[in-house]
Amino acid sequence: MKITITAFDRSPDGGRGLARDTRVRWALEEVGQSYEVRLVTFDAMKQPAHLLLHPFGQIPTYEEGDLALFETGAIVLHIGERHAGLLPNDANARSRAIMWMFAAVNTVEPPILELVTARIFEGDKPWAKERIPLVMGHVRERLKQLSTRLGDSEWLDGAFSAGDLMMVSVLLRLRASGILEEFQNLAAYVARGEARPAYKRAFDAQWAVNNRN
Amino acid sequence: MKITITAFDRSPDGGRGLARDTRVRWALEEVGQSYEVRLVTFDAMKQPAHLLLHPFGQIPTYEEGDLALFETGAIVLHIGERHAGLLPNDANARSRAIMWMFAAVNTVEPPILELVTARIFEGDKPWAKERIPLVMGHVRERLKQLSTRLGDSEWLDGAFSAGDLMMVSVLLRLRASGILEEFQNLAAYVARGEARPAYKRAFDAQWAVNNRN
Repeated sequence: MKITITAFDRSPDGGRGLARDTRVRWALEEVGQSYEVRLVTFDAMKQPAHLLLHPFGQIPTYEEGDLALFETGAIVLHIGERHAGLLPNDANARSRAIMWMFAAVNTVEPPILELVTARIFEGDKPWAKERIPLVMGHVRERLKQLSTRLGDSEWLDGAFSAGDLMMVSVLLRLRASGILEEFQNLAAYVARGEARPAYKRAFDAQWAVNNRN
Repeated sequence: MKITITAFDRSPDGGRGLARDTRVRWALEEVGQSYEVRLVTFDAMKQPAHLLLHPFGQIPTYEEGDLALFETGAIVLHIGERHAGLLPNDANARSRAIMWMFAAVNTVEPPILELVTARIFEGDKPWAKERIPLVMGHVRERLKQLSTRLGDSEWLDGAFSAGDLMMVSVLLRLRASGILEEFQNLAAYVARGEARPAYKRAFDAQWAVNNRN
């Protein structure tokens, strides 16, 4: 069945792979499913047609036959459940891979998003200078715990899974901050993710969209 | 198989149902599974024995035979996949219920957590007075979108699901702020969640723990 996703017509990151459609593209590339992309402008994202697909007016969305989904984690999980390559067969290992997906978006990403807010949306506020180091401290606390758990393992729990796909994608948002490099095993973990052929194809595809003409 | 979860020995909310173990208790009550609870102090949560179970040093955790999980969303999803009562049988409806679980923790909860941080952890900072209304604005923006989508439906997508369980739990954190009451359909939605017998049993159980002697 034809799969159609939505992505930014022009991503705020200029195509550096940080928009969430990259996560969905990566998942589809890992499982070898082709897909079409419908580009959406910021204006169109807030219009009724798109809000029917995504009530919070964001990208990506996922359409396949009668099914329409929003929320990146749910889309990646759906892809992993329908196609081999993102979730282990063993039931317990599968539950743990899904656990890392939720850990990525609900435990590790929130302080990282706070840092983005503090820097970009509140960067001109009088409190920015004093508050940013505080938020960076929260990010470091989480990374330290994650770094301890990862140790010198290649991936979070056995073979590469949708949990790693989500965690690497979340950590990539830290690249510009320099914090990731304070944790060598996490920096190497992210580099392993980026080195996967499926990631490269996903990155190249979203880069091409954002750097056309 | 015996199920054991962890919960705060003394919850910071004094037992008002806001600690995340309430979500797991609620899920277990919805599917009619009994469980044991191991209480953990703040000190013990940061010790190696607990960090083996939960690398981020939090509660709840979930143990069942050989399986050990952390991360509330993943635990609730695991329960929903193993027992009837939390996820629809239809494959597409099931994917949409999981979509709402992710939307609860990854789209609706982050600004709510930012508000908790702004009020409790940064309440004494010089910027608190000016910043809190800003964060409240972000919360209102999300609630408005959610309120529009919910409309006058009873639940988010057909029958009650794990998606509603997570969304109601996230919205409950707003009770003290008064913001929830600005959106009548969301306030009524949360009240419907709280009125479920399974929620009441979960609430009563965590209340009893936190209000013993």
